[in-house]
Amino acid sequence: MPDANHIAALRGLIGDSAILTEPADMSAYETGARYDMGRAAFVARPASTEQVSAIVSYCVSHGIYLIPQSGNTGLVSGSTPDPSGAQGVLSLDRLIGTFELDTANRSLRVSAGLRLSELNARLEDAGLCFPIDLGADPRLGGMVATNTGGSRFLRYGDVRRNTLGLKVVLANAEGTVLDLTSELRKNNTGVDLKQLFIGTSGSFGVITECVLNLEPVQRQTATALLVPTSPESVSSLLVAMEASLGNLLSAFEGMSGNAIRAAFDHVPSLRNPFQGGTVPDYVILAEISRSNAPRRGEQSLDEVMETVLAESWEGEDQLLRDAFVGRPHEVWALRHALSEGVRHKGRLIAFDLSFRRGDVMRFVERMKRELPLNFPGMDICHFGHIGDGGIHFNLVAGKDDARISQRAFECGLRAWVVDIAVREFGGSFSAEHAIGRKNQAFYDQYTSTEIRKLAAGLKAITSPGALGSAIF
Amino acid sequence: MPDANHIAALRGLIGDSAILTEPADMSAYETGARYDMGRAAFVARPASTEQVSAIVSYCVSHGIYLIPQSGNTGLVSGSTPDPSGAQGVLSLDRLIGTFELDTANRSLRVSAGLRLSELNARLEDAGLCFPIDLGADPRLGGMVATNTGGSRFLRYGDVRRNTLGLKVVLANAEGTVLDLTSELRKNNTGVDLKQLFIGTSGSFGVITECVLNLEPVQRQTATALLVPTSPESVSSLLVAMEASLGNLLSAFEGMSGNAIRAAFDHVPSLRNPFQGGTVPDYVILAEISRSNAPRRGEQSLDEVMETVLAESWEGEDQLLRDAFVGRPHEVWALRHALSEGVRHKGRLIAFDLSFRRGDVMRFVERMKRELPLNFPGMDICHFGHIGDGGIHFNLVAGKDDARISQRAFECGLRAWVVDIAVREFGGSFSAEHAIGRKNQAFYDQYTSTEIRKLAAGLKAITSPGALGSAIF
Repeated sequence: MPDANHIAALRGLIGDSAILTEPADMSAYETGARYDMGRAAFVARPASTEQVSAIVSYCVSHGIYLIPQSGNTGLVSGSTPDPSGAQGVLSLDRLIGTFELDTANRSLRVSAGLRLSELNARLEDAGLCFPIDLGADPRLGGMVATNTGGSRFLRYGDVRRNTLGLKVVLANAEGTVLDLTSELRKNNTGVDLKQLFIGTSGSFGVITECVLNLEPVQRQTATALLVPTSPESVSSLLVAMEASLGNLLSAFEGMSGNAIRAAFDHVPSLRNPFQGGTVPDYVILAEISRSNAPRRGEQSLDEVMETVLAESWEGEDQLLRDAFVGRPHEVWALRHALSEGVRHKGRLIAFDLSFRRGDVMRFVERMKRELPLNFPGMDICHFGHIGDGGIHFNLVAGKDDARISQRAFECGLRAWVVDIAVREFGGSFSAEHAIGRKNQAFYDQYTSTEIRKLAAGLKAITSPGALGSAIF
Repeated sequence: MPDANHIAALRGLIGDSAILTEPADMSAYETGARYDMGRAAFVARPASTEQVSAIVSYCVSHGIYLIPQSGNTGLVSGSTPDPSGAQGVLSLDRLIGTFELDTANRSLRVSAGLRLSELNARLEDAGLCFPIDLGADPRLGGMVATNTGGSRFLRYGDVRRNTLGLKVVLANAEGTVLDLTSELRKNNTGVDLKQLFIGTSGSFGVITECVLNLEPVQRQTATALLVPTSPESVSSLLVAMEASLGNLLSAFEGMSGNAIRAAFDHVPSLRNPFQGGTVPDYVILAEISRSNAPRRGEQSLDEVMETVLAESWEGEDQLLRDAFVGRPHEVWALRHALSEGVRHKGRLIAFDLSFRRGDVMRFVERMKRELPLNFPGMDICHFGHIGDGGIHFNLVAGKDDARISQRAFECGLRAWVVDIAVREFGGSFSAEHAIGRKNQAFYDQYTSTEIRKLAAGLKAITSPGALGSAIF
């Protein structure tokens, strides 16, 4: 447990005001975006890679456990301290000094503490963006540590795909600064070590600087809400739209009727685009987009969408029951309201799963059949990224459902869902939220002995010190 | 040095005919695609992951050095044995049994010994392809081990981006089979261990099975040959075309006049598309393409190309001196003839470099100025992938230039070029060919102590046995 001497020493390293110890000051750093309430021994707010190194070196040498914290928007207890009061938080929120844009290279060298929204605001004049599209507004270091995906993965991929280089401080006695930054896109001169720090929840090192791939901003967009004829037709519809739309398709998101209704209930200002206001059982949000300004002679994207939907109807497959070519702003407002809507509907147990794309709806159908038999009284309010196999699988009980407060009930339910997803469907128990404390038990259970042994070996040679919420 | 007892034991493991020892049988496995002539103790040709494991386990236990060999099309002495006669070759050429296509998921589970051309031929009916576009025809395992990029990196990225999972045999006494296969696109449940085996020249493990991302085949294509007004305008032209063409741009390749003339000399059947047959100093091959079949009301890609080029002329920047909207087949035939053309022009010293995109032409101009002063009599015949910063930087001396046979001359020239590329431009000495024996000295020289130490640590915990040509 860090004592007053430790605090004084840490203050000596990076300045008095950069080490917080007052409960009121620490509260925001101890509280997670949705679930967590921990207790920190201190919060360190270094403003440079060198200061991060000094803090890490000191803490490793003195056996002090550090939890790196970025935007603190995660949902898996990855960035908050546990309740012991023995862990220090290492916040990246003052690590914002570097911003070096190379427009010819479409790349950006940037401190890990910048928020995604600010990053993109500062890139607007150059017509570029970091193309990871999320509901939340995380800082970059955490996006790398969790390898976030988001709603336009189908076109742009995840953070891993868009990371050209990293600077990392290792949790060893020296606080080694590992410079893996590079603006190069093609470079095969050894092990791509930066990969070790992507998606590993900060346990292998503290990310202090990133070199990112940027993409041109989308300048034309059209969206449609599609009602498939059956759950089975969803994956055929995706394949058909990829074939007919090719490179234009930039999102293919699924939304359950339950989730949509929850969003309408929670945000009354949302417009209901469905005929007679009746929300279908399941709706697909399809987006097509282009990064060029409209060109002489070019067909508009609304026309393209209408042509392609007409073809879908003319086809023999009967994949669509209904479709609404929507206003992009309204359609995405609905999509982004689902998460909060579901959360306010009742007591929520949320899963971040992924499957082979063709298995997503098979899993949902299986759950619809078997969940009521095993855990009656839970509403399935799923939505997610069919285009890449991801699904935010949410179960909601009534606000006064007492079972949800019982740890055994929640654990049993979680274990049952995850076991079917992982063992029977070959799915993932964490598609884009990484591990954190929340998924640790699933990591321990579903990771093979060989892989766990290798991961522990990697941890030992990179950051042997106590760093990060995930235990490898 | 493996003796008769070892050979007998290896035959006992995977069958008599699967272990070659006759010089005539081994010759093709000892000879590299361009440069190498080694000598093998034996060639093992296992037909399954289990057989690979048996061979590797035996060799590690008995101190026998193994060189994994895939298609043997590499250019860095990565897949052939050294001249000692002590190394065994582990060929993947019989590892071709698995081919499991999932069209809904756009993924393929496939043995590592399949050739790229055969893979794509078998995917044709599904309208899908593995989108790494190369002049050579490697087998998959080697593509993963070198993380090949190719000519359409700009749109599809490298092998790393398109690899969903791997099965790997580790070089330890057990010949551990590490199953990292997965059809999932989003999965953040620990360290992404497969990354360790991508681009590390087979030294960390033998890749036996891959799960690949597939992309829809391009169904419409238009190409143009562009003559920029100056070297400085090349990178501005790339930025302008990305802005006006957006997602349509699929290749942006540079070709020096010297390389083009060498191709015309070597392949007389190539059509010369340039006015009066005069080859410009530098030409860009721009390709736009779409994966959808032509749609009602859609502008043709030739029209798009002409519109965009007209805009380039109307603009104030004067980036273009000339342009030829070409027939894709002919234009790509020219592009793919460059490598062989340059090789037949004289005595070749080739580099596979990469830079920030804006630095490629700066490096070339620097070389044009300084090379004649330091190494007179060498023609610069470069070409490559401006869209991703890669450049095949080729220096050609006359066929009877005696200097080239002198090792000191070649070493001095190589060291001089690479040093400027790496130290002064922050470039890569191996953009897409990985390490092999040929780049080992550069790895040792230009890799920081921290990184080399970590890489050696990774090698020790994955494959401590003597495996692969690259020494980490």
